[in-house]
Amino acid sequence: MYEKTRTIEWENGIVVTIDQAKLPFETVILEMKSCKEVAEAIKSMKIRGAPLLGAAAAFALALTAYHSRAGNKEQLVKELESAAEILKNTRPTAVNLFWAIERILKGAKNFSGNVNALTAFIVSEAQKIADEDAAANRRIGKYGAELIHDGDTILTHCNAGALATVEYGTALGVIRAAWEQGKMIRVIATETRPKLQGARLTAYELVRDGIGVTLITDNMVGYVMQKGLVNEVVVGADRIVKDAVINKIGTFTVAVLAKEHDIPFYVAAPKSTFDLKITSEDVIIENRSPKEVTHIGSIRVAAEGVKVLNSAFDITPLKYVTAIICESGILYKEDFDKFKA
Amino acid sequence: MYEKTRTIEWENGIVVTIDQAKLPFETVILEMKSCKEVAEAIKSMKIRGAPLLGAAAAFALALTAYHSRAGNKEQLVKELESAAEILKNTRPTAVNLFWAIERILKGAKNFSGNVNALTAFIVSEAQKIADEDAAANRRIGKYGAELIHDGDTILTHCNAGALATVEYGTALGVIRAAWEQGKMIRVIATETRPKLQGARLTAYELVRDGIGVTLITDNMVGYVMQKGLVNEVVVGADRIVKDAVINKIGTFTVAVLAKEHDIPFYVAAPKSTFDLKITSEDVIIENRSPKEVTHIGSIRVAAEGVKVLNSAFDITPLKYVTAIICESGILYKEDFDKFKA
Repeated sequence: MYEKTRTIEWENGIVVTIDQAKLPFETVILEMKSCKEVAEAIKSMKIRGAPLLGAAAAFALALTAYHSRAGNKEQLVKELESAAEILKNTRPTAVNLFWAIERILKGAKNFSGNVNALTAFIVSEAQKIADEDAAANRRIGKYGAELIHDGDTILTHCNAGALATVEYGTALGVIRAAWEQGKMIRVIATETRPKLQGARLTAYELVRDGIGVTLITDNMVGYVMQKGLVNEVVVGADRIVKDAVINKIGTFTVAVLAKEHDIPFYVAAPKSTFDLKITSEDVIIENRSPKEVTHIGSIRVAAEGVKVLNSAFDITPLKYVTAIICESGILYKEDFDKFKA
Repeated sequence: MYEKTRTIEWENGIVVTIDQAKLPFETVILEMKSCKEVAEAIKSMKIRGAPLLGAAAAFALALTAYHSRAGNKEQLVKELESAAEILKNTRPTAVNLFWAIERILKGAKNFSGNVNALTAFIVSEAQKIADEDAAANRRIGKYGAELIHDGDTILTHCNAGALATVEYGTALGVIRAAWEQGKMIRVIATETRPKLQGARLTAYELVRDGIGVTLITDNMVGYVMQKGLVNEVVVGADRIVKDAVINKIGTFTVAVLAKEHDIPFYVAAPKSTFDLKITSEDVIIENRSPKEVTHIGSIRVAAEGVKVLNSAFDITPLKYVTAIICESGILYKEDFDKFKA
């Protein structure tokens, strides 16, 4: 059991997190001292979850600054820019990573002060990004809980929990807040192939909190909705653009099924996930290794010779979304129209 | 590689088939000499696929008759009735198993002749059921291929191939027939959790035939349809009732997505799968062990303490079905209305 309150923490030049590729079967603490180590952990999904990627990227730049031997501000900014390139080449879809990098780089470029002061600024800015995410999740939970009724069963996909964020979670933050208000709720978690974040991480978080959770295979979503077992869907997001929500593969399938069954479909995400300058056509959907599908651990589960499409995210047009819950409140259809402005 | 033409064969008092729980990683031939062995193989899904279950149940009764020491016809009929009870308690959803049992029992009860002649009759009736299934699949293929166009990509779910039938397959029979006609087609196969029949069996059959096949996780169906990668869906069925098609869990989800994207949704099944006396409310949906979801092989893939719902089938109302392809031809919406009569 991981006992820290936060999924990621800064400890005097070391970034501490938990290896989510191994959870819940092994609790392996990662102590990272360089941007490269963080980048590798992101690529291999030891660190995953859009808001967490933002904080991790910020802390990676903080590591670069903290351990730099740059003699002046310009040199440090150059090193930060190189580090940023490494981070940007990890995973292309979640925007929080790019947002955090831009925020820190912009702050660094505009900073007036010496190289030591700049280092301190960057470390504190990264800490601030983490603090803000934790605070945003609490507010998302508070707003979102209004949409959840006593006795409801909420279906969630993938893991948008404490592990996907700095703490508390987005979709699971909404569920936690409703639970803390005393609402007797239950959760249906999809296993979320191929990486099984639902089976491994969401189930783990909810079992730990004592919230009743039932695991289903991804292809069972239609069946449980048809049987009337789902009152609402709450998921997280990796990027919210003018016309769509980009999230873990399978989200669109859940959204279509929710619409077909008149079940509200809610997206919970901090504003660092919003990218309203672009549309879904501009988003790069990451394709990952076929091996994630053909193998589980080291065991082959698919026939030899088969080709594989392993897209990690999909696109849910806003017409399928009932509301987006962010730290500023609940956005409905009429608010979505403003995205296009 | 399994080199026999037929998935199940009768060889002088032995029923020979292949262990589908181990395919395609191990080729284990099962040689069964008793009804109980067949029943165990069905329960553990070494034998699976609705039409194959019909043939397997028929051959199981043939084994009972062949190895019986009954001195008269009445005694043999009693033994067959006991064997039928064992078979009926294996898997409740696919109707072909019940249909084959009833056909043989009825034939046995009405048979006039001595116990030896009855034994010969039962063996030949079982053989006939197998022959009829093989022939039905060829005709299903021929009719269904008319619906497939040169250049099409067909999405299929689970395995409705040669392995699910006596030979050739239902959904894969349609695909094979179109391929044999020279149509350049491709297939998208869903992996079909939890037992991965798509990843293991459908991929195996199509790779062996040289038909291009791409494997996706079940939750990727919406994404590939949204991208315009699917021209039609063809699936098999475990039971077709007055108002719905009952098939492998996930079929309903695929059907809703097909409707949302205006993609034809075809069901290919022999008439032994039709059960038009009842509606979907009367069908027992089999719930299987949570372990099928929480473990892959002996490896745990889900967090400890999580509850699991593992329904093996779902219900696709006929409004989502474009056509049903059977050995008598193609049935459309107007034909479905006659089901209710």
